[in-house]
Amino acid sequence: MNKLTILIHCNDQPGIIANVTNFIANNKGNIIYIDQHVDREQNIFFMRLESEFEHNTFNTEAFKATFKQELADCFKMKWRIYSTEIKPKMALFVSKYDHCLYDILGRYNSGELDVDIPFIISNHNTLKPIADSFNIPFYHIPMTKETKAQAEHQQLDLCKKHGVNFIVLARYMQIVSNKIISQYPNKVINIHHSFLPAFVGAKPYHSAYKRGVKIIGATSHYVTEDLDAGPIIEQDVARVSHTHAINDLIAKGRDLEKIVLANAIKLHIKRKVMVFNNKTVVFS
Amino acid sequence: MNKLTILIHCNDQPGIIANVTNFIANNKGNIIYIDQHVDREQNIFFMRLESEFEHNTFNTEAFKATFKQELADCFKMKWRIYSTEIKPKMALFVSKYDHCLYDILGRYNSGELDVDIPFIISNHNTLKPIADSFNIPFYHIPMTKETKAQAEHQQLDLCKKHGVNFIVLARYMQIVSNKIISQYPNKVINIHHSFLPAFVGAKPYHSAYKRGVKIIGATSHYVTEDLDAGPIIEQDVARVSHTHAINDLIAKGRDLEKIVLANAIKLHIKRKVMVFNNKTVVFS
Amino acid sequence: MNKLTILIHCNDQPGIIANVTNFIANNKGNIIYIDQHVDREQNIFFMRLESEFEHNTFNTEAFKATFKQELADCFKMKWRIYSTEIKPKMALFVSKYDHCLYDILGRYNSGELDVDIPFIISNHNTLKPIADSFNIPFYHIPMTKETKAQAEHQQLDLCKKHGVNFIVLARYMQIVSNKIISQYPNKVINIHHSFLPAFVGAKPYHSAYKRGVKIIGATSHYVTEDLDAGPIIEQDVARVSHTHAINDLIAKGRDLEKIVLANAIKLHIKRKVMVFNNKTVVFS
Amino acid sequence: MNKLTILIHCNDQPGIIANVTNFIANNKGNIIYIDQHVDREQNIFFMRLESEFEHNTFNTEAFKATFKQELADCFKMKWRIYSTEIKPKMALFVSKYDHCLYDILGRYNSGELDVDIPFIISNHNTLKPIADSFNIPFYHIPMTKETKAQAEHQQLDLCKKHGVNFIVLARYMQIVSNKIISQYPNKVINIHHSFLPAFVGAKPYHSAYKRGVKIIGATSHYVTEDLDAGPIIEQDVARVSHTHAINDLIAKGRDLEKIVLANAIKLHIKRKVMVFNNKTVVFS
Repeated sequence: MNKLTILIHCNDQPGIIANVTNFIANNKGNIIYIDQHVDREQNIFFMRLESEFEHNTFNTEAFKATFKQELADCFKMKWRIYSTEIKPKMALFVSKYDHCLYDILGRYNSGELDVDIPFIISNHNTLKPIADSFNIPFYHIPMTKETKAQAEHQQLDLCKKHGVNFIVLARYMQIVSNKIISQYPNKVINIHHSFLPAFVGAKPYHSAYKRGVKIIGATSHYVTEDLDAGPIIEQDVARVSHTHAINDLIAKGRDLEKIVLANAIKLHIKRKVMVFNNKTVVFS
Repeated sequence: MNKLTILIHCNDQPGIIANVTNFIANNKGNIIYIDQHVDREQNIFFMRLESEFEHNTFNTEAFKATFKQELADCFKMKWRIYSTEIKPKMALFVSKYDHCLYDILGRYNSGELDVDIPFIISNHNTLKPIADSFNIPFYHIPMTKETKAQAEHQQLDLCKKHGVNFIVLARYMQIVSNKIISQYPNKVINIHHSFLPAFVGAKPYHSAYKRGVKIIGATSHYVTEDLDAGPIIEQDVARVSHTHAINDLIAKGRDLEKIVLANAIKLHIKRKVMVFNNKTVVFS
Repeated sequence: MNKLTILIHCNDQPGIIANVTNFIANNKGNIIYIDQHVDREQNIFFMRLESEFEHNTFNTEAFKATFKQELADCFKMKWRIYSTEIKPKMALFVSKYDHCLYDILGRYNSGELDVDIPFIISNHNTLKPIADSFNIPFYHIPMTKETKAQAEHQQLDLCKKHGVNFIVLARYMQIVSNKIISQYPNKVINIHHSFLPAFVGAKPYHSAYKRGVKIIGATSHYVTEDLDAGPIIEQDVARVSHTHAINDLIAKGRDLEKIVLANAIKLHIKRKVMVFNNKTVVFS
Repeated sequence: MNKLTILIHCNDQPGIIANVTNFIANNKGNIIYIDQHVDREQNIFFMRLESEFEHNTFNTEAFKATFKQELADCFKMKWRIYSTEIKPKMALFVSKYDHCLYDILGRYNSGELDVDIPFIISNHNTLKPIADSFNIPFYHIPMTKETKAQAEHQQLDLCKKHGVNFIVLARYMQIVSNKIISQYPNKVINIHHSFLPAFVGAKPYHSAYKRGVKIIGATSHYVTEDLDAGPIIEQDVARVSHTHAINDLIAKGRDLEKIVLANAIKLHIKRKVMVFNNKTVVFS
């Protein structure tokens, strides 16, 4: 069977669901999963479908063409169609912190992430031994204020050469410029070590400690040009108290960061995240 | 507009979604919400739809008849169709504990629960003043081993007389017999003060204390003939430690019980819970 | 037995614990609970003790005098000593929202809060029936920009007349001025309907919705002159998703607000909260 | 400075705290942390102290002898004194699952765990490459019904030879017999993949799926002769729904297992866990 995941959004209007489901049926597909949401404030309709089609009679490109003509154009849909046969390619950007990298590679190794990792890029050489132990190519691209443009150029080259579909910043301690973001819109996933929008920017655990919060958090979001203000994919929190010094917050936070980033990656891989107006619809 | 909520389950088979959505469209309805689930282990398909139909041209009973004939019979569906215009009637059964009762009536008063409460029944007179202060009729029906059958008969009479649709046991300290359950299958909602299936039966906080658990819970479930073994609607937990004596567990537990029971009631009222094989599908 | 709760903080220095515990023993007291914390960054020592003394031989005022002379003055301690025999008096300030009020009064009625509530003050008459049903005096003190000074004067008069020890703002929709705060430093407890410091100020649920957060929160804190920036006593959170409209956030938030405020009140009543440098030490 | 951690429990009686703190002061120690608990039901007093003593004047063995004579014997205390200079030695037992092993070794590598890991033992060879990549000796000791006694003998020999202080079963899929438990009482830490006491024994995720629970959990406990019934150190939970198949529960559970086991290990290393009557006092 040929499995497709179809993502649609458009202005809400009567008849979309019936027309789409009909279209699938007419093309001899079987819907195995459907999820839908209407943003009543913006009047936007969102839908995610998983459908199966018989292999021998099915041509994905032809299907896409018909879909566009008979359905998408009528309803003025934004749409994407993915074949589940094609594994997405994920690039990892890291700096010196190793906890998210270990966590992602451990999951990757055990088959939990349905993805290819063509390479790891870092502005430091620190984590190369970890990349080596998992047999993943590691590119050390140093970065200073002066070399940033050139370094990002190299990064993009690697991404293009390997057909990278999305980028994960696994505690990568550099601000990614619009040069990269514009090539990967809603496709650069960051983990921020606070419960956004609290504690935007650097050293959020220090700020959390200073404010005396009783709960800390981590936030995974798509990177946009506004620092730490992109669409939120996933958040989680942990309870803390006066007994926790800053280092304790940092240690507790590491566990949050790992879990939240891993969940965001999994949602992205399964095409369960749709972005509109700087917010996400997450079909879980 | 006439709003209907449609619940369906049947053996999974190709084409159900397309046929149902088509049927709605052919009957000049607009689907405003669709949710669906397939239990792959049991091969059962579940669906919940909210649809709107034009008032002047629409007849609910005729729609139901056509639905049965053209759709439900073909796919051998179990189905229910509710008009959102008709508020369900909820009977409250209580004993001496007041926290769940206060909580439910507070929500009811502030319009959070889209339901009618025709009366409160108790085997004690203790909570009558609370019922009075909310202007809800209170029936004191004492219950002993000897009078149980007769007392349940009275309870059922009241329920029938007032057209009660479902019953909420708000820390009602009697075991409800099959006489009532069989009349209200998957329509008697209980709150059990533990994280089921841990600590079935009486005095779960004492058992939790004895076992030294670090987390306590509460579970709302539909009542079946097997004590505390009915389909689970909602659960929640709270962290405890060695510093909590049994009374502290009980106090912490009260807050869990209130929230979990209220959430289960809300899910039931919105027809978001489907039951199959002693488990629930909860569309949230 | 005479039970005292003793709270101490001072610069950290060797020997404090030994000297304090010795002092209790020399005064024929038995320590039944001791908790202690050192803020290593500020070098401040905090301690909370519960001690029992034989009734017939014990005089609290004499004990306080000796404590000051022999202990507190030497170590330059800030200290407070409470007799558990004296119930604190708590004033409730409300506006139109009823959920926190119902929750607090329900707990009060069932004996969960070891406190006296001499009266409820509101700038609206809306909640008077609830106060009446719990037999608690209700004072309607309207408040406009023009009458604010005069109204707060009335509020303070009532508090003084009834010997109020602390004030709870149970979704009181007015900003309390320094006139009151200065009389009740770290004794005015507010519930803010967001996970502070995210979404300071008005309409936090609207801001949370707009930002697309996946978790909402509530924060109880002592009121200071900086709006929503006082020392945090307690916080809690709940998971939300794209399916929650603003009204759903508000409804979910009500449950958080109730629980968080109730917990903060209980901690305050048990003298478990110490404030230093705009942060709390919460001995739980 | 010489730092000691002192753990005490005995029957509750007046004067313990004063006597202990006095004793420390008389021995020229400074108490930097004190925590205490009384189990009112069993009437047992628990205390944990961290104290500093001047290096040049201090002899740990002499201190222990005096402590025993002047304090412990009088109050009939059970007591343990640890020097924080000596790192505990932790043996890891694994089978085929790698997620807990990766997690523990990642933390170990980054300095999060103040412990030595002399070796890893497994009844399978599967995880040897991971041990190798972290440069930790790996012993493959196969185990069948017939060879169990002999294999456990080998395991114990290794533990003794390396001076192992405690054993962590990181998803080790064998039941550890009393031969080992009796040598390491309250020193064998297991991670059970359910919210105990729910779902004792094998395949708890399958049982959780079957029961239709809305929350799953993981439990770390000391191993006793009663399977999965030893004193609970730490538990955590995660929300699930009808959309989660058994494999999803297993995947979600892996994250719980990692965090819960790591937390339990950290508490054990810091000597924050005391065991009495099959329950723990966890000073956090």
